[in-house]
Amino acid sequence: MVTLEQITLYAKQTGFIFQGSEIYGGLANTWDYGPLGSLLKKNIKEAWIQKFVRENPYNVLLDSSILLNSKVWEASGHIGGFSDPLTENKDNNQRYRADKLIIEHDPSINPDGWTPEKMHEYLVKNKVMGTTNWTPIRSFNMMFQTHQGVVLEQANQIFLRPETAQGIFINFKNIQRTTRKKLPFGVCQVGKAFRNEITPGNFVFRTREFEQMELEFFCKPGTEMEWFNYWKQFMKSWLLNLGIHEENVEFEDHKKEALSHYSNATTDILYKFPWGFDELWGIASRTNFDLNAHQKHSGEDLTYLDPETNERYIPYVVEPSVGVERLVLAFLTNSYKEEKLENDDTRQVLALHPALAPYKVAVLPLMKKVHAEKALQLELELAKHFDVTYDETQNIGKRYRRQDAIGTPFCVTVDQETMENDTVTIRHRDTMAQERLQIKDLKAYIEKYLEF
Amino acid sequence: MVTLEQITLYAKQTGFIFQGSEIYGGLANTWDYGPLGSLLKKNIKEAWIQKFVRENPYNVLLDSSILLNSKVWEASGHIGGFSDPLTENKDNNQRYRADKLIIEHDPSINPDGWTPEKMHEYLVKNKVMGTTNWTPIRSFNMMFQTHQGVVLEQANQIFLRPETAQGIFINFKNIQRTTRKKLPFGVCQVGKAFRNEITPGNFVFRTREFEQMELEFFCKPGTEMEWFNYWKQFMKSWLLNLGIHEENVEFEDHKKEALSHYSNATTDILYKFPWGFDELWGIASRTNFDLNAHQKHSGEDLTYLDPETNERYIPYVVEPSVGVERLVLAFLTNSYKEEKLENDDTRQVLALHPALAPYKVAVLPLMKKVHAEKALQLELELAKHFDVTYDETQNIGKRYRRQDAIGTPFCVTVDQETMENDTVTIRHRDTMAQERLQIKDLKAYIEKYLEF
Repeated sequence: MVTLEQITLYAKQTGFIFQGSEIYGGLANTWDYGPLGSLLKKNIKEAWIQKFVRENPYNVLLDSSILLNSKVWEASGHIGGFSDPLTENKDNNQRYRADKLIIEHDPSINPDGWTPEKMHEYLVKNKVMGTTNWTPIRSFNMMFQTHQGVVLEQANQIFLRPETAQGIFINFKNIQRTTRKKLPFGVCQVGKAFRNEITPGNFVFRTREFEQMELEFFCKPGTEMEWFNYWKQFMKSWLLNLGIHEENVEFEDHKKEALSHYSNATTDILYKFPWGFDELWGIASRTNFDLNAHQKHSGEDLTYLDPETNERYIPYVVEPSVGVERLVLAFLTNSYKEEKLENDDTRQVLALHPALAPYKVAVLPLMKKVHAEKALQLELELAKHFDVTYDETQNIGKRYRRQDAIGTPFCVTVDQETMENDTVTIRHRDTMAQERLQIKDLKAYIEKYLEF
Repeated sequence: MVTLEQITLYAKQTGFIFQGSEIYGGLANTWDYGPLGSLLKKNIKEAWIQKFVRENPYNVLLDSSILLNSKVWEASGHIGGFSDPLTENKDNNQRYRADKLIIEHDPSINPDGWTPEKMHEYLVKNKVMGTTNWTPIRSFNMMFQTHQGVVLEQANQIFLRPETAQGIFINFKNIQRTTRKKLPFGVCQVGKAFRNEITPGNFVFRTREFEQMELEFFCKPGTEMEWFNYWKQFMKSWLLNLGIHEENVEFEDHKKEALSHYSNATTDILYKFPWGFDELWGIASRTNFDLNAHQKHSGEDLTYLDPETNERYIPYVVEPSVGVERLVLAFLTNSYKEEKLENDDTRQVLALHPALAPYKVAVLPLMKKVHAEKALQLELELAKHFDVTYDETQNIGKRYRRQDAIGTPFCVTVDQETMENDTVTIRHRDTMAQERLQIKDLKAYIEKYLEF
C-alpha cells in the first residue's frame, strides 16, 4: 500500500496538490489543488451532487454564506461548546490536544466526556510523553474569529462557519416554503468551513480550511432510524460504485454511551488511510436538536404541518457529512498502484473511476508533423463534452505511461488510418487493450464509462 | 425594466436568493442561494469553466486556499495599500467611503489618487450631504483579519483572501513545471474572497463575501495588448452567447491617467443594472508587477525560460476577473420579464439560456392518477443527464406558468399517448410551442439547446 510520503510526493510532482503558500515557506497545513487536483476535487463534488441531489427525488441544493449572524452559533452551541481540550508540554513548549494524547497513550481509553481535571490528572499520573510537566487544560474554541465593519468592537465580532450544516437549518422554512416539499426531504450543501485545529496534519486529512458536503435530511419523528439506515447504505454504495475497494472501508457505530447528548445514533465510515483506519464520513441522527434550538433562539416558528395527519411538529434530522479533501485522499490512495508488466517493466497507474479522472481522454497524434492538426481538431470537438488533454511529445508508449500515471482512462490516437476513414484507436488505461472506433461514436462510447 | 426591489422579491419568493441569517434579523448584506439560486450559480460557474478552461487550449484550473501566508499580502501590496478612504458624518454617526460621496455629489469628478486631505477638504467645502461635519479621512484596510493557532498574537495573524489572483501567482512555477506549458498559458480559479466593504449594498452586487472567477493569463512581454484584446472580446462573446442583450453591456476603457501604477491597460464591462450601468467584469493588463513582487519578496526565481529564443524573463499578465454574484444579478435582470399574452393574460418568464436554467426539464404527468408512475420513471431517467424537476399539482396550464417563471426551458408532458407509444409532448418556454418526440430522442434533443 502506498505510504503518506509517497502519495504526498506523487501529488506534488504530478500537479494534484501543492503545499499552500509554498514560496513563502508554507502556512501551517494548507494545500493548493493544482491543475489535476482541482479537477479531481471538482469531479468528486459533481459525483456527490449527481447522486445526492440530481438523481435523488428527495433532496435539493443550497449555497449559504460562510459568514453568519453570531446568534446562529449561540443557538447551535458552538460559541459555548465547540472547543478542544488544550494543554501544553512545558518541557518542549508545544501545545497538544489532551484527549488525543490520552488515546495515543492507551487506545483502549475513550476520554470523551472527561472533565479537564480528569484529563490533566491522567497525563501527569501516567507520565504521558515521559513527562509530568503538563499545564492545566483549558477549552480552546475552534471557531476562527474576525470582525466585520469598520470598528473592531465586540458587536462586530463574527465567525467563519465551522460547518455548513447550520446554514441549512436556518433556511429550513424558506426552502420548505419555496419548494413546497413534503417530509421527508433533504437539503444538500457543498462549501468551505474552517476549524482552528490545534494539531492539523496527515497531509490533507485534517486541515483548518476544508470543504464539506452535507445533507440534512428532514423526516417525521419516529422514522429517523429507517432513514438513518437508508443513508448509511447510500453513502457506502456511493463509495463502492466509484471504485473504493470494499476491504478499505468499514462502519463504526458509536456506542450509546459515547453519543452526543442530542444524537440517538451515529456511525462513521472509516477508510483505510496509509496510517490505518480513520474517519472518512459520518452520519448522525440528530433528532430535532438543531431546529428546536433555532426556534427557541430566533423566536421563529420552525414547525412543520403534516398534511396527512394535520399534526404540527419539529422534524427530526439525519445528517451524513463528509469532507471533500478526505475523499480526495481516499480516492488517491485507493487508486494509486505501481504495476509490474510482462517485460519486467513497471507502470504507475492511478486507477480512478472515469467519472473522477481529471481528464477523461488524452488525444495523441501518432506523428506530430502529420497528425497534429487532425488531433487538435478532435481535441476541440471532445472538449465540448469532457475534460480532455493533448500530448504530442515523445513516443506513444511514453505518452500512454504519462496518462496512466495521472488516471486518464482513455487515450485516443490519431494515425494514418484516421486521415483516411475517420477512425481512431482508443486505448484503455486499466487493461491497456486497444479498439478501433469511428470518431463519431467516441462521445457515446466514453459517456457510458462515466456512469456509476 | 425590472427594478431592484422587484427582482429581490422575486428571488426570495421563488427560492433563488434568501437574506442571510434571516431568522436572526440578517447579517449586513449577506445572502443565501436557495434551491434555484444555488443551481443558477453553479451553472454560471460551469459555463465559465466550460469556455475558459475545458474548451480553451491555453488554460488550466487551480483551486488554492483562502488562507495564505501573510507574506503573500505584503508582497502584493494588500497589507500596505488595500484600503478605502473612510470618513464619518458626525451628524448621523454613519460611516462612508469618501471617494463614493464625491462621485455621487459630482459624477464628473474622479477622486482616484486624491490625498485624504484633498478629499476631506472637498467634502467640507462643498457641504456634501448638506453638512461640513466630516471627520478626517483615514485609510481602512478591507482585508478581514483572523488568527490561526491557539495564541492570539501578532505572529499568528492571517487574512481572508480579498482576491483569488494571488493564489495563482504564487503557484506559477508549480503549475508551469507540472503541466510543462509554454507561454502563452493561463490559470483559472473560481473561489470565495472576502472584502470588509464599508458600504455593501445593492442586493448581491456588493457583498463582503463573494465568489470570484479569475484568469491570470501569462504571456511574453510585448504581446500583452494582443491578448488583452483577445480576452476582452472573449468575455463579451461569453456574455452574449449566454443571452445577455447587447444593449445591456458596454466597454469602459480606463483613461491612461486613471490606471493603477502597474497597469498599462484596464477595461470594465459595464452591465445595465436596475440602477444604471455599473461594473460587471474587469480586465487588466498587469505587466509583470505581481510575479516581480513575489520574486522579490520570496527570493524564488519566477522567471520563464523561453524555449524559442532562450531568453529568460518574467511573464506579463492579463487578468479578466468577474464576480459570480454580479453575474447572477445580471442574468436574472436580463432574463426576467412579464409578458402580455393574446387573451389579455400575462405570464412571468425567466428567459435564461438553457445552459444556465436551474432545471432543464420539468416532467409533468397530464393526470396524476394515470400518468404519474410513467412520469416519475422518465424523471429518474432524465436526471442521469440533467437537473430535472417534477410537478403533478394543479392543471397543466398552471404548471407551465410555474416553470416559465423559474426559467425551465422545457416541459415534458406524459399523457395517454405516452402510455401507448413512448412519445411525449415537449413544450418550449419561450415560444410556448409544442412538439411530439420519442422518449429515446429527448436526451440528444435537450443537449443541443445547452450548447452556447
